[in-house]
Amino acid sequence: MADSKQPAPIVRQQSPLNVEYPFSRLSDWLIPNDQFYIRNHFPTPRLTVPDWRLTVTGAVDKPLSLDLDALKAMPKTELAAVMECAGNGRVFYEPAREGLQWQDGAVGNALWSGVLLRDVLAEAGIRTNAVEVVLVGADRGVVDAGKKTASPGEIAFARSLPLDKALSDSALLAYAMNDEPLMPEHGFPLRAAVGGWYGMAWIKWLVEIRVVAQPFTGYWQTRDYIQWDRTLGEPMVAPLTTMNVKSQIAQPVNGAIVEAGRPFRIHGAAWSGEAGLGTVEIATGDDAPWQPATLVGPAAPHGWRLWEFIWTPPAPGRYRLKSRATDALGNRQPETPQPDRESYAANWVIPVTVDATAGPEEPADNFVI
Amino acid sequence: MADSKQPAPIVRQQSPLNVEYPFSRLSDWLIPNDQFYIRNHFPTPRLTVPDWRLTVTGAVDKPLSLDLDALKAMPKTELAAVMECAGNGRVFYEPAREGLQWQDGAVGNALWSGVLLRDVLAEAGIRTNAVEVVLVGADRGVVDAGKKTASPGEIAFARSLPLDKALSDSALLAYAMNDEPLMPEHGFPLRAAVGGWYGMAWIKWLVEIRVVAQPFTGYWQTRDYIQWDRTLGEPMVAPLTTMNVKSQIAQPVNGAIVEAGRPFRIHGAAWSGEAGLGTVEIATGDDAPWQPATLVGPAAPHGWRLWEFIWTPPAPGRYRLKSRATDALGNRQPETPQPDRESYAANWVIPVTVDATAGPEEPADNFVI
Repeated sequence: MADSKQPAPIVRQQSPLNVEYPFSRLSDWLIPNDQFYIRNHFPTPRLTVPDWRLTVTGAVDKPLSLDLDALKAMPKTELAAVMECAGNGRVFYEPAREGLQWQDGAVGNALWSGVLLRDVLAEAGIRTNAVEVVLVGADRGVVDAGKKTASPGEIAFARSLPLDKALSDSALLAYAMNDEPLMPEHGFPLRAAVGGWYGMAWIKWLVEIRVVAQPFTGYWQTRDYIQWDRTLGEPMVAPLTTMNVKSQIAQPVNGAIVEAGRPFRIHGAAWSGEAGLGTVEIATGDDAPWQPATLVGPAAPHGWRLWEFIWTPPAPGRYRLKSRATDALGNRQPETPQPDRESYAANWVIPVTVDATAGPEEPADNFVI
Repeated sequence: MADSKQPAPIVRQQSPLNVEYPFSRLSDWLIPNDQFYIRNHFPTPRLTVPDWRLTVTGAVDKPLSLDLDALKAMPKTELAAVMECAGNGRVFYEPAREGLQWQDGAVGNALWSGVLLRDVLAEAGIRTNAVEVVLVGADRGVVDAGKKTASPGEIAFARSLPLDKALSDSALLAYAMNDEPLMPEHGFPLRAAVGGWYGMAWIKWLVEIRVVAQPFTGYWQTRDYIQWDRTLGEPMVAPLTTMNVKSQIAQPVNGAIVEAGRPFRIHGAAWSGEAGLGTVEIATGDDAPWQPATLVGPAAPHGWRLWEFIWTPPAPGRYRLKSRATDALGNRQPETPQPDRESYAANWVIPVTVDATAGPEEPADNFVI
């Protein structure tokens, strides 16, 4: 069986570049920068440090224009955090939904280094009427021209954070990823790292922070990246925010052939949004009991946890393996898709079907060309 | 020339029924109920008075469930008001935009009778934390299934009014139109009449009023019926609300043949949203001066004004006739489409091109088969 040591990235779109990490190759707590998934809406802006500035404007006492040196002179903070694209797992929706057909690799865990957003906001002085902080990227373009969902001409990628999140320990302006400067595709020279939130809030190529006194209803939180909220009766548009609790099986992959009577390591990763991960459980069949997986490797409040479960297929046959995570507040992955999430936030249990063979006299490799 | 006395309604969609008034036939201040434009999103609910109730819920001291007799026992208010579909004039957008291709007849003026919304709200007792009033119709269905703009399954037609508008003199719960009970297609037994606002706020088949303590971001004011607002920098979704100032020429129609040297009556209607209409002016060519038209017929704060301008084509030739309205605050119809209005709120000047012939020796009828 041909088996390159380098995982092959899965290109979902060439222009703008959208690349998925091959999640089946998961082996480390941190995903290397050159394998980390890339989700772009527009062509990558090629920014240079001498020309780049971050402005802080709006409902502040002292508007700022900062260069990269000014940010690096501020206290440095590290945040280990998982970032999941809100569209991760979209391919599992049935019937298929519009949008990039991400499987399970639009997610990754990394160490982000930079300046706390609240430190920058403190320097600017937030006014008392502030309610949200709008983050604006340098990436711009036209969306869905001619369609009902068209953007009003060229727009930037921009999202807002409510003030409490913007001032939290987990809202970072990151200039480094896994201790290296950001790659252009990951937002060089500065991006947001918003622990616990889906990736659409992690604005890349950050150029403007605008403190606003009213809710921001920009394109990327009203026309896109929304879910439905029914607290007022009729469904309302609500921006996507925190990640849902979720686990994914990296190995075995769907269709794998395993050996009856021989221990096999089922493993993967699990994460949650703000609540923190609680437990991961495994079931080796639709009627099989849920059994606890073992959490392995590093832990961090906003990072993912790797997990494993050593399983010995009891007899030849077909097995549907399932994992489910429960967060620290008791929220658990559902068995079926949740309505009202558009094509986003897929976190239901996705079974992996494997066939167990009778033993080593029929090695799996014999059946692989 | 065949010339029926009954205007032929223009069917824009058969199911659900969407019908346009033939604006060129404008002759009276009030449009008769059976000629008034119809804009439906879902099939017409067939409601019966014995079964129908209006509920008032949410941030109120005393939830209500009212039948039609209860509403008719309350003080009756009349509101003469023009209602324009936000999509009226969409056919003039270039390039064409998605949506029903309304020309200039998705507008009409009528006399609406019923109960002030504020009287009903007073009976329920609005709590101090209320910010908006959600109006919910009995018409329901699925929108854009499978598309990016899909509704979350079946939804009702529902919109909110800010509290100040809900409590104003011009927010009516109407059970009569031009002194007749509402026709089923116009919302029997009760609809909203929201003077100054585009038609999407005039909820038909009203069954629920929900007072809410937070902004309502329902489908019809975030996914549809929106415009773009740039007050916070990057464009934001903003619900359509008040009508833009606008005039329309009913006669002559585009392509009409008139007679040089002989007076001709150019006439039409003009209206505005909250400001009230100021003036209407006419230009009989692109380089011709704007001259005041005469306002004729009844006036009412939220009604439209009919206007006329007697014009004598000075010589044979082609003329581009234009009308423009200015409201009482000085807002004037623009010469060109406004950006940021999606496919809505078309109010720019639409010229009418006519040919003036030399005189009665070449009567127009000779050229009409």
